[in-house]
Amino acid sequence: MNYKKPLILVTNDDGYQAKGIASLTEVMRDLGEVIIFAPDSPRSGMSSAISTSHPLRANLYRKEENLTAYICNGTPVDCVKLALNEFTDRKPDLLVSGINHGSNAGVSLIYSGTMGAAIEGSLFGIPSIGFSLCDFAPDADFSFTAEVARKLAAKVIEEGLPKGISLNVNVPAGEVKGIRIAAQTRGKWVNEYYRSKDGQDRDVFWVTGNFENWEEENDSCDEWAMSNGYAAVVPVQVDMTAYDIIPRLKEWRL
Amino acid sequence: MNYKKPLILVTNDDGYQAKGIASLTEVMRDLGEVIIFAPDSPRSGMSSAISTSHPLRANLYRKEENLTAYICNGTPVDCVKLALNEFTDRKPDLLVSGINHGSNAGVSLIYSGTMGAAIEGSLFGIPSIGFSLCDFAPDADFSFTAEVARKLAAKVIEEGLPKGISLNVNVPAGEVKGIRIAAQTRGKWVNEYYRSKDGQDRDVFWVTGNFENWEEENDSCDEWAMSNGYAAVVPVQVDMTAYDIIPRLKEWRL
Repeated sequence: MNYKKPLILVTNDDGYQAKGIASLTEVMRDLGEVIIFAPDSPRSGMSSAISTSHPLRANLYRKEENLTAYICNGTPVDCVKLALNEFTDRKPDLLVSGINHGSNAGVSLIYSGTMGAAIEGSLFGIPSIGFSLCDFAPDADFSFTAEVARKLAAKVIEEGLPKGISLNVNVPAGEVKGIRIAAQTRGKWVNEYYRSKDGQDRDVFWVTGNFENWEEENDSCDEWAMSNGYAAVVPVQVDMTAYDIIPRLKEWRL
Repeated sequence: MNYKKPLILVTNDDGYQAKGIASLTEVMRDLGEVIIFAPDSPRSGMSSAISTSHPLRANLYRKEENLTAYICNGTPVDCVKLALNEFTDRKPDLLVSGINHGSNAGVSLIYSGTMGAAIEGSLFGIPSIGFSLCDFAPDADFSFTAEVARKLAAKVIEEGLPKGISLNVNVPAGEVKGIRIAAQTRGKWVNEYYRSKDGQDRDVFWVTGNFENWEEENDSCDEWAMSNGYAAVVPVQVDMTAYDIIPRLKEWRL
């Protein structure tokens, strides 16, 4: 093994067969030695979920010079944890997750398996980035996003990121004007279900919906960047404490 | 329907048959009209996961004065979203999740289905609280935690919480000295897998591990509170932006 090359862990939430992870892997192979540890099938919307009721399995499916690839029956976070606990003999210099088919900007961050994996990597002290392209098509054109990934990955390997900090990178479909550092847009999904019937005429509910943006005019937010033709880079922290409200809660004298 | 009573949405991640949700429901019935919308089986470690590949179903299983209970084949967040989108005719005044069998203090927050549900409630502008008892036993004694829940729920109905803010409440097993407002302890899980074999002699990995506390001496953190006999209340925000690091990233001139 060549210890001079950076070791790069690649994962995603769309599963190992998705076009997005193939594009990302191709670019990462130019930057270092790659280990892929990806879910065996799509795991969209898995957030930071871990499998607690069934055991994990990992199967080697590809081995070439500077590339080792496993598939795993777990969530994106399971993939990262299992890879780092049991399948790596040195700490990766970088973790990249994606390229996701669809946006993970705004509040979608908290449901995103792509970002679940990146957040997990940051806990291990590995600079970690999740990439998403705002295009759900299985054959979406990932070429521009892959170039953003190349540039950002090289920069992050050089500069590092503090432990517990990852990057959420979202790229709009179509022409892109540049890259903006941004904050997570406040908002929520609304009209979230499509009510339908099963074969026995019983109600079933399929997830759908649209994003209600509470900060449409705020040009420091990721949704603004995306709507205005920029790729958005949001630094994300593991610490979810709402420090500002602690003094108020202390006044409750519980 | 009596619109004078507060409407309280109750859910959990251990499933509708767990002792913890029964204890929580009993106390909440003293405070208002209760709607239970709980997973049909255990969903521990589900974080903010949503079901994207199969439809949701909800079945009424109990209907009494001031109590309506549904079971759902989704995650805790699915339960909250489906209840609020399709099964409530007024906005609940409070959402409570739990009482979880096991701690969700420190970084466990990000994997917790109990807290996934509470975070989701806060996005709807509903004051939301997740409760956990640091005792995994199915027949754990929830009486003290239930009293904490009663006190805190009454206070939160009175005072409210800002949109996007929920509370993560963890109670140690055994004698409790009081309640402390705290921050999420920094740290991570280590030694996370038990390697075993299946019936065909193939490797399988079961999740396990222990929590590595990076802030053992910090008395403002939730793990310190728990270790020292206090219940810990951490305010949690949906916004995960690491604002402090934005200026540094802007200097990268991407």
